[in-house]
Amino acid sequence: MLRVLKFGGTSVGTLERIDNVAQIIKKFIDAGDKIVAVVSAMSGETNKLLEYASHFSNDPVKKELDMLLSSGERVTSALLSIALNDMKIKATSMSGREAGITTDDCYTYARIEHIDTKNLINSLDNSNVIIVAGFQGISKDTSRVTTLGRGGSDLTAVALAGALSADVCEIYTDVDGIYTTDPRIEPKAKKLNKISYDEMLELASLGAKVLQNRSVEMAKKLNVNLISRSSFTPEIEGTLITKEENIMEKPVVSGIALDRNQVRVGMYGVADKPGIASSIFTALADDNINVDMIVQTVGNDGKTNLDFTIPTADLESTKKVMEKFQKDTQDIDYNDSVCKVSIVGVGMKSHTGVASKAFTALAKDNINIRIISTSEIKISMIIEEKYAELAVRSLHDAYDLDK
Amino acid sequence: MLRVLKFGGTSVGTLERIDNVAQIIKKFIDAGDKIVAVVSAMSGETNKLLEYASHFSNDPVKKELDMLLSSGERVTSALLSIALNDMKIKATSMSGREAGITTDDCYTYARIEHIDTKNLINSLDNSNVIIVAGFQGISKDTSRVTTLGRGGSDLTAVALAGALSADVCEIYTDVDGIYTTDPRIEPKAKKLNKISYDEMLELASLGAKVLQNRSVEMAKKLNVNLISRSSFTPEIEGTLITKEENIMEKPVVSGIALDRNQVRVGMYGVADKPGIASSIFTALADDNINVDMIVQTVGNDGKTNLDFTIPTADLESTKKVMEKFQKDTQDIDYNDSVCKVSIVGVGMKSHTGVASKAFTALAKDNINIRIISTSEIKISMIIEEKYAELAVRSLHDAYDLDK
Repeated sequence: MLRVLKFGGTSVGTLERIDNVAQIIKKFIDAGDKIVAVVSAMSGETNKLLEYASHFSNDPVKKELDMLLSSGERVTSALLSIALNDMKIKATSMSGREAGITTDDCYTYARIEHIDTKNLINSLDNSNVIIVAGFQGISKDTSRVTTLGRGGSDLTAVALAGALSADVCEIYTDVDGIYTTDPRIEPKAKKLNKISYDEMLELASLGAKVLQNRSVEMAKKLNVNLISRSSFTPEIEGTLITKEENIMEKPVVSGIALDRNQVRVGMYGVADKPGIASSIFTALADDNINVDMIVQTVGNDGKTNLDFTIPTADLESTKKVMEKFQKDTQDIDYNDSVCKVSIVGVGMKSHTGVASKAFTALAKDNINIRIISTSEIKISMIIEEKYAELAVRSLHDAYDLDK
Repeated sequence: MLRVLKFGGTSVGTLERIDNVAQIIKKFIDAGDKIVAVVSAMSGETNKLLEYASHFSNDPVKKELDMLLSSGERVTSALLSIALNDMKIKATSMSGREAGITTDDCYTYARIEHIDTKNLINSLDNSNVIIVAGFQGISKDTSRVTTLGRGGSDLTAVALAGALSADVCEIYTDVDGIYTTDPRIEPKAKKLNKISYDEMLELASLGAKVLQNRSVEMAKKLNVNLISRSSFTPEIEGTLITKEENIMEKPVVSGIALDRNQVRVGMYGVADKPGIASSIFTALADDNINVDMIVQTVGNDGKTNLDFTIPTADLESTKKVMEKFQKDTQDIDYNDSVCKVSIVGVGMKSHTGVASKAFTALAKDNINIRIISTSEIKISMIIEEKYAELAVRSLHDAYDLDK
């Protein structure tokens, strides 16, 4: 069995944690598996290097940042290989270049374009473990080292698993899987055994920050079976993220996600000009502002109101864009004490009454829903932020997720 | 003018020291030069990584050590490039691979076999400064990263200067040049302006540890003008190490070197067997023990005595080899309280009486000379170690080196 394993910064954060990773790999080798392990820099290293860079420049040249930052993963890969070889396990480290990973030349957030597996496959004949420095590749044009941005090591692992047709890609973090909701809010939250890519994508983008969306999207595209599990408790099996077809029992609701980083923008008394809404959202899109939920209503006075949500991080740039539309509206109001609660589940497709159960649960707790949006597998609701935890617990209970 | 500059670990030991290196480079750029700068890891980094490795293994796999250790130089090269770019100087970092340096596959002490300057020369069209991560190349067979061992960054600089036909190769350390002798022993020691490769080789191997012999040998072979100077006092011009032909005034004596790491091995009453001396020295050579000075004498009793010197570091392995010859001799004596004082100068070739002046000077101070060996440009003497400083000062004075 060929397994691609990915160990993040906290999993290799100290020399002792790297010992622990070596033990995890040894168990698989003893069982006869071949391993491709993708490693991150030891936690803290990347930030240290970024601090160094900021000593020299407020805006360091990006291609040099990549030369700088890619070194941390090289160090971890060499150390893990030294540890494994000392345990008489045949292991070889590889840089992104050696692993055949070519990217575009967008330094610091490059995209993987191609993986030439020749060197990897040859090396797997002689070594039982290949340790690949994550987060990096080389530009197809300049042949210089590039880095893949946030979550880059996960991407490396998924892309390699896809290119090698690995049986599974296990992403090790300090969390032992995907939960029905955040256990810090609802202690009765349960770990899911399986979840579909689409459900995971909805849960991730809604705030469950175990896996980066880019990685899940790539896993879906390449049909890679992804497992989220913990290097701190490797005896616990984790959560399998896979194709919907591979999931026999499809629960109506798989999880409840919460996203606090939402701002509700309310435009009251919008002028009755054709295409006004369209030009507002085009202007926001041109500025890379990610508008999420949109509701248009006509008030009692016959005037149009427009409500939409944006990420908190985009508040200032949104305000700047909206200045242009000041003349077209009576009032623009920004409310950042709201949050988004979402109910996610593939079973919704074939079940009715899912939404009404949510509305009933929230109504019972006197929580007003300001905006609602639904898709095939999710229902999202904007509510006042002070009700965030209460809403999550009520919904978790309403759908019997602790059972 | 194309200058290759090399900055060692202490010259890039802190972020502020790297700022200082950027200023040194800026002065050359402002004067219209092109620069290839070779950098070491920040001082302490390589030792830190070695400590990490020793956590995992008493004998870490060498090819992984190279993957590990080569990262420190990459970090420095990227940081220096970030600093220069922030000063609006066009700079690019390069790994050993990108600089076209191929080596044999002796990991951790590889030898440079070839430099493909294509990428370097192309990049010098677009950049005014190329910063090469020192101490590393790639194996011509496996294409994996290799490191060049002790003094490897100096070697990188000299090899690049040779391959690029650079006008000069400046080696920056924390010492501002080559002195007539160690200033800590003789405060009247003077900095030399020029010295020939051969003199430098004799001075280096005899203990003046500013430049590694491998680098000076390579500079001689490739005809590279080498300058030893300090990054802490860059306004001081340093010492040029060059071809003997380039030195107009050839002093009889250029410097006095002292080597304390010597053991004198005395074999008394060696059996009168043909080829006995030859088999002893062959056995030592087979064990990579570097025998330096050899004297064979016949005592009053008609018996043969054999005296030779070895480096202190080889004492234990020498004793082991000598066990085989115990039966061929009356007594073997190891004396490590000796030292070697050497007088070096190209002018000796055409001057007589140089040696007798040394003997007179030492005799005046009642210093006995135990072994003497001479070459075209040097006279070495083994004396009791307690006279080391006195002998250096007497000889420095006898040859008027403070004038």
